[in-house]
Amino acid sequence: MRRFVILSTTILVAGCAGTTSTPPSVALLTDYGTTDAYAGVLAGAVLRNCPDAHLITITHQVTPFDIVEGSYLLARASREFPEHTIFVAVVDPGVGTQRRSIVLRTRAGRLYVGPDNGLFTGVVRDQGLDRAWEITDESLLRPGALSATFHGRDIYGPVGGLLASGFPPRRVGPEIGDPVMLPAHEPARTAGKITGQIVHVDHYGNLITNIPARWLSDTFSKKTPTVSVLVEQQSRPATWARTYADVPPGSLVVLPNAEGLVEIARNAASAAELLGARAGSQVQIHH
Amino acid sequence: MRRFVILSTTILVAGCAGTTSTPPSVALLTDYGTTDAYAGVLAGAVLRNCPDAHLITITHQVTPFDIVEGSYLLARASREFPEHTIFVAVVDPGVGTQRRSIVLRTRAGRLYVGPDNGLFTGVVRDQGLDRAWEITDESLLRPGALSATFHGRDIYGPVGGLLASGFPPRRVGPEIGDPVMLPAHEPARTAGKITGQIVHVDHYGNLITNIPARWLSDTFSKKTPTVSVLVEQQSRPATWARTYADVPPGSLVVLPNAEGLVEIARNAASAAELLGARAGSQVQIHH
Amino acid sequence: MRRFVILSTTILVAGCAGTTSTPPSVALLTDYGTTDAYAGVLAGAVLRNCPDAHLITITHQVTPFDIVEGSYLLARASREFPEHTIFVAVVDPGVGTQRRSIVLRTRAGRLYVGPDNGLFTGVVRDQGLDRAWEITDESLLRPGALSATFHGRDIYGPVGGLLASGFPPRRVGPEIGDPVMLPAHEPARTAGKITGQIVHVDHYGNLITNIPARWLSDTFSKKTPTVSVLVEQQSRPATWARTYADVPPGSLVVLPNAEGLVEIARNAASAAELLGARAGSQVQIHH
Repeated sequence: MRRFVILSTTILVAGCAGTTSTPPSVALLTDYGTTDAYAGVLAGAVLRNCPDAHLITITHQVTPFDIVEGSYLLARASREFPEHTIFVAVVDPGVGTQRRSIVLRTRAGRLYVGPDNGLFTGVVRDQGLDRAWEITDESLLRPGALSATFHGRDIYGPVGGLLASGFPPRRVGPEIGDPVMLPAHEPARTAGKITGQIVHVDHYGNLITNIPARWLSDTFSKKTPTVSVLVEQQSRPATWARTYADVPPGSLVVLPNAEGLVEIARNAASAAELLGARAGSQVQIHH
Repeated sequence: MRRFVILSTTILVAGCAGTTSTPPSVALLTDYGTTDAYAGVLAGAVLRNCPDAHLITITHQVTPFDIVEGSYLLARASREFPEHTIFVAVVDPGVGTQRRSIVLRTRAGRLYVGPDNGLFTGVVRDQGLDRAWEITDESLLRPGALSATFHGRDIYGPVGGLLASGFPPRRVGPEIGDPVMLPAHEPARTAGKITGQIVHVDHYGNLITNIPARWLSDTFSKKTPTVSVLVEQQSRPATWARTYADVPPGSLVVLPNAEGLVEIARNAASAAELLGARAGSQVQIHH
Repeated sequence: MRRFVILSTTILVAGCAGTTSTPPSVALLTDYGTTDAYAGVLAGAVLRNCPDAHLITITHQVTPFDIVEGSYLLARASREFPEHTIFVAVVDPGVGTQRRSIVLRTRAGRLYVGPDNGLFTGVVRDQGLDRAWEITDESLLRPGALSATFHGRDIYGPVGGLLASGFPPRRVGPEIGDPVMLPAHEPARTAGKITGQIVHVDHYGNLITNIPARWLSDTFSKKTPTVSVLVEQQSRPATWARTYADVPPGSLVVLPNAEGLVEIARNAASAAELLGARAGSQVQIHH
């Protein structure tokens, strides 16, 4: 009997809830920035409910209040994480209003906690929605009065910690069938012309579009890899190639990125700076 | 006997010192920035003495040399962390001078390591001082000559790692009764007028004051929620409300923040930019 | 027998591969920035192959494409980490070209994974090269087609996770004897004059040179601690001292830094701003 007790303790150590054999990973994505105490507060709130959670920062630097960017980055990062990772995501301009707080499980088995404002649009489109629940059980929240301005601390961190410790998501509150989704902006193509939208400008100045990469080979010929890129009312020549270093330093290149989307970039330089482009800009690629 | 040996090993794994059943959390706050090797060096120095410590970054982006800001952020983040968390905090313009290095335990049971220059003022005011010790035992420091410029690597990281591994704080050196405290700037109120100081500008541009939030309801009436905010010699109208989204986008709002302090903000915009305010600015809220 | 099975499970938990008693540390250094999903993707890719790896960020903010800076920062941070730490380092302007991907072990026993473009020059100079292998076994890579633009996700993260889980480095591919090394820029001295190069400007604006600190005492006399610093065609007086606070705030100081190199700094101010210096600038210190 004694042996059994000791072993359970050890297993409890390894995974908060004693149900898994690995410390649970909790990945964080917010617009809290990295110069305030907010990211630390969120980390502390998760750890209070699951002291051995393994915290990973995706980014705390989503553009403040930008749900569209947050949704894109969360979807993109999520794909690489092991199933059963728990994600706490907070970009929440409507904090303190009537918007719901939810837990969402994708068909890939990943769990998400955050505000129900469209932030999970990308992961639902990518992985499919399994089930979602509204967080209504107040006993799960941070003790004390719920603040009107910091639900990462009061709701999402604590619930994320609980989920990491094995708390069943269905017990946070009633199931919902309609998490908020952002509108889709679909790319289009005609003979010799592709149009789409820039969904993200990364810190190198690369422009990520919503255009499927295979449309390049469907539309253009490898024999004439020179295309024109029209962004912000300026058209410029670019080379359709495999990678950045296929063109001279500073030159414009159109390539399939690692996610299977068309990316507009320059070799060792910023395409955003050259083209004056930003997230949301329309883009056209033509002969 | 053999079984006992194996089990001890396993327990040793779970908590460095074999005394706790969860990997010890070590939270870091510095002004080292995130673009140099310093934060990594500090992390390595902790891990050398406690390889299974769980490192959490509160921020490495305290404004360089700003002890007041460091003290505020450390206090604010600390509250959410589990008891027995160990904090390594370094904002240290006097590195290499005669200022002491200390370990400090608050009444809430949290342990702090860092320079004795006022950086722990906020946590002492918040949580109360239990005991403090000067680090004088040189055998605990990084092997090799003590540098005059990088005590995070040479003293605070190694001692933080030792504490995480269960080393008793009282053994770092003699107890001291007088850790350095920063002067307090108390807010004041008269009929219809509150004055205070901006203690922090967060990355959204929200202005955190040192004014207790309940002073708002003590001073103003919910029936006339329009107040005037005087900062940097300019007075502007603002709405006293619960949360950001209670006013139109871009409008100025005065609200109780999640820490029970008055915050001056704009809905989805920067109040700091509008008002030209910064940490240390005086603020007056009146009818 | 049953007891043995349970104990093995427990040990497996503690270190991915069941060979060590502590969760393996994987330290990350890249130029991915902190505002995109890339750092999160890399973290996820490591965790997929070693869910209990302990991830530590050295920095994700190497200047984009700057292999020289990356090499310096990686070498500097590496020294403090425990032996057997695994480092995944990616500054990779040649991604998708014919440059090799390698695993490298230093004489100090640390393992490095990344592109073979000179990024490991600093650690090889510092710690000595033990062995290196080219990564050629495609079965170790991320399932699916290898992208031409994101080898952190496809190669370095997965291989880093494998190494953390105990996979033998010699099995990634054939041993190589000639990892790419950056050219060395050696400092020089004559009577009363030292010349060298600024290898890094840190975020305080301190200028780190490649000049050994002991050259100061070999060249100058403590009795006349005033020297001249010539950078970017401007000569200015400075004080040779032990630490920043040995001179008045704002004054220029030349000091031995914590790594045994000459550092040019100002007390609580930026030397880089005053001197207009940057990484690569030549520096001369004379009477």
